[in-house]
Amino acid sequence: MSEITKVALDAMGGDNAPAAAVKGAVDAVLKEPGVHVFLVGQEEKIHTELEKYNYDKERIEIVNATEVIEMAEPPVMAIRRKKDSSIVIGMKLVKEGKADAFVSAGSTGAVLVGGQVIVGRIKGVDRAPLAPLIPTAKGFSLLIDCGANVDARPAHLVQFAKMGSIYMKNIMGVENPKVGIVNIGAEEEKGNALVKETFPLLKETKEINFVGSVEARDIPYGAVDVMVCEAFAGNIILKMFEGTGNVLISKIKEGLMSSLRSKIGAVLIKPALKNVVKSFDASEYGGAPLLGLNGLVVKTHGSSKSKEICNTILQCVNFHNQRINEKIRECIQAESDSVE
Amino acid sequence: MSEITKVALDAMGGDNAPAAAVKGAVDAVLKEPGVHVFLVGQEEKIHTELEKYNYDKERIEIVNATEVIEMAEPPVMAIRRKKDSSIVIGMKLVKEGKADAFVSAGSTGAVLVGGQVIVGRIKGVDRAPLAPLIPTAKGFSLLIDCGANVDARPAHLVQFAKMGSIYMKNIMGVENPKVGIVNIGAEEEKGNALVKETFPLLKETKEINFVGSVEARDIPYGAVDVMVCEAFAGNIILKMFEGTGNVLISKIKEGLMSSLRSKIGAVLIKPALKNVVKSFDASEYGGAPLLGLNGLVVKTHGSSKSKEICNTILQCVNFHNQRINEKIRECIQAESDSVE
Repeated sequence: MSEITKVALDAMGGDNAPAAAVKGAVDAVLKEPGVHVFLVGQEEKIHTELEKYNYDKERIEIVNATEVIEMAEPPVMAIRRKKDSSIVIGMKLVKEGKADAFVSAGSTGAVLVGGQVIVGRIKGVDRAPLAPLIPTAKGFSLLIDCGANVDARPAHLVQFAKMGSIYMKNIMGVENPKVGIVNIGAEEEKGNALVKETFPLLKETKEINFVGSVEARDIPYGAVDVMVCEAFAGNIILKMFEGTGNVLISKIKEGLMSSLRSKIGAVLIKPALKNVVKSFDASEYGGAPLLGLNGLVVKTHGSSKSKEICNTILQCVNFHNQRINEKIRECIQAESDSVE
Repeated sequence: MSEITKVALDAMGGDNAPAAAVKGAVDAVLKEPGVHVFLVGQEEKIHTELEKYNYDKERIEIVNATEVIEMAEPPVMAIRRKKDSSIVIGMKLVKEGKADAFVSAGSTGAVLVGGQVIVGRIKGVDRAPLAPLIPTAKGFSLLIDCGANVDARPAHLVQFAKMGSIYMKNIMGVENPKVGIVNIGAEEEKGNALVKETFPLLKETKEINFVGSVEARDIPYGAVDVMVCEAFAGNIILKMFEGTGNVLISKIKEGLMSSLRSKIGAVLIKPALKNVVKSFDASEYGGAPLLGLNGLVVKTHGSSKSKEICNTILQCVNFHNQRINEKIRECIQAESDSVE
C-alpha cells in the first residue's frame, strides 16, 4: 500500500484564485483516498470558499499566509521580501518535509526561483527544468526545458534527457521513451552551437533512448516522447503550440458563424469538434513539474480551473508513489560516480 | 512606367519540378506584362512542359543547366561542385546582372549558400536573413530570420529589423511597421543573452518602429508586423506554426468523419472551413526572400505548386519596382557613415 501524499497548494495563485484552488482540492480528496492537501494562503478567503463544499475535514488543512506574490513582480525580489506569501510558505512546507509537493498557478518566475532557492536541487542536478506535457496527434510528449534555464549548457541538456525519460517511463507509462533534441534539420551536422555540442553527448548517454534530432514541424505529430531543448526554444515551442491552436480554433468558429448554411453545419459537428479541441487541451494532463528538486514543485497554467488543479494534485500522488525523485537521484548519482 | 523585371526561375527545384515551375512562369507572364522569365534547367524536360501552353514566346526563355542539386546534398559542396546546376546557373544570371531575381523551390541550404557566395551581400550587410510572411489572425507578419544564420549576433538582428521594416513598408504597404523582438516574456529584463543585448540596440535604432518584446503566444494573433529573431528560434516558430496547423486541421477532418451526424455537418461547413484554411496558407503570399543580397533571391516551399511559383514571380516584380535593394543599401550605408 502507498503512503499518504501531502500536497501544499497555493490557494492565492492564478486568475481564478482562491475558488479554483479550493474546488480543485475538494475534488482531489474526493477522488483519491491517498492524498492530504494544505491550502496555503489568506485564511479567511479560503475558509469562505471551503464552506461551500462537503468533504472530509481531516484531509484538507488551511495554512495561513498573509501575502500574495503578484504575476508582474520581479521574482527574485518577491521571493526574498514576501516571506509570508503563499508561495514561500508552501515551498517551506516541502523544504521541511511537511509536504511532498507544492502546486501553484501563480507567477511562473516566482515558482522557478522559489523552487531553486527554497526547495533546492537534488545533489548533482545542475539545473531544474520545467517540463510540461504537450498534446500531439499520437497522445502527448514531454517538453523539457520550457522556461527555467535560458542559455543552458550541453551537460544540462543531458541531465534534462535523463530526468525526462524517468518521468515519461514512470509517470506516463511509456516504455523506453524516445528522446530527441529539438533541431532545425534532421542531420547531425545541423543546428546551433549548443545543439552540435550536445548531440554527441546524448548519443553516448546509455540511460536514454536517443533517436536524434526532432524538427519543430514534427513535434505536433508526436515524433518523440521526450523533446530536449534549452528554455528559450522550449518556451517558443509551448507558446507557438498554444497560440496557433487558439487562433486557428477561433478562426474556425468565426468561419462557422459566417453563413446560415455553416451555422446549421456547426450545430451538427459541435460534439465532434469538441472532442478534437479537448484532445489538444494541455490542462487534461495537469501542470508542468519542475524536475530535479528535493521535493516536487508543479506549475499549472495561470488560467487554471479546478479541473486542472485537481488533475495536478493527482499527478503529485503518482509522482510521489512512483518515487521519481529517488530514481532521479540514483541516475544522477551514477553519473557523478562514473566521473570520479 | 516601370521597366521589365527579369526573373530567373529554377525549373528543376522542388517536389513538382519542372511542371509547377513551367506553369507558374506561364501564368505569371499572362498576368503581369512587366516580367520576363528565364526557365533554368534541363532544356528538353522544360521544353516538353512548355509546349503544353500558349504564351508570348519572347517573354519566356529557357537557359540550359544540365545538373540538379538534390534536397539531401550537403549545400556547400553542392554549390562548389555542381557548376552546371540550375541553382548555380540561375544565381549567376543575377550576379551578372542578366536577371533581377532568382526563385527556387529546391534545397534551402543550397539557395542560402548560393545566395551568399554567388550573388553576394550588399556592402555593409553582415548576414542575409531569410524572411517569410506568416499568416496571422490580422493578416500576416514578417519573420526574420527563419533559417539562414544560427548563432547570430546583436548587430545582425538590428540589420534584420531595418531590412524587414523596409520590406513590410514597401512591398506589403504597412505604414510604420511595428517591430518586435521574439522573447519569452514582455519585460525588458527577460530573455537569453542575445535578446538582452539586442533589446537596447533596437530601442536606439531610429529607422524602425520598435515596440519591444513579442511572446511566441502572441505571434499567431499578429501582435507585430516584423518579428526579429535568430534563425534557430525563427525556424522553430515557422515549423511549429505549420506543424500545429496541419495536425489540428487533419484532426478536425478526422473528427468530422467520426459519425453520420458530423459527416452531414461537414458537407454544410465545407466552404466556410476552406476559407479559414486558405487564410492560414502561407503560399498565398509567395516565397521567402533572402534579404540584403546584390539582387533578389526567393525560396519557395519544396512542395510549391504553380500558384505559389506564379505569386512569387509577381512578388519579384514588386520588389524590383519598389527598388528595395537601393533602399536597403541607403539604410545600411547611413549606419556605417554614422559609425565612422
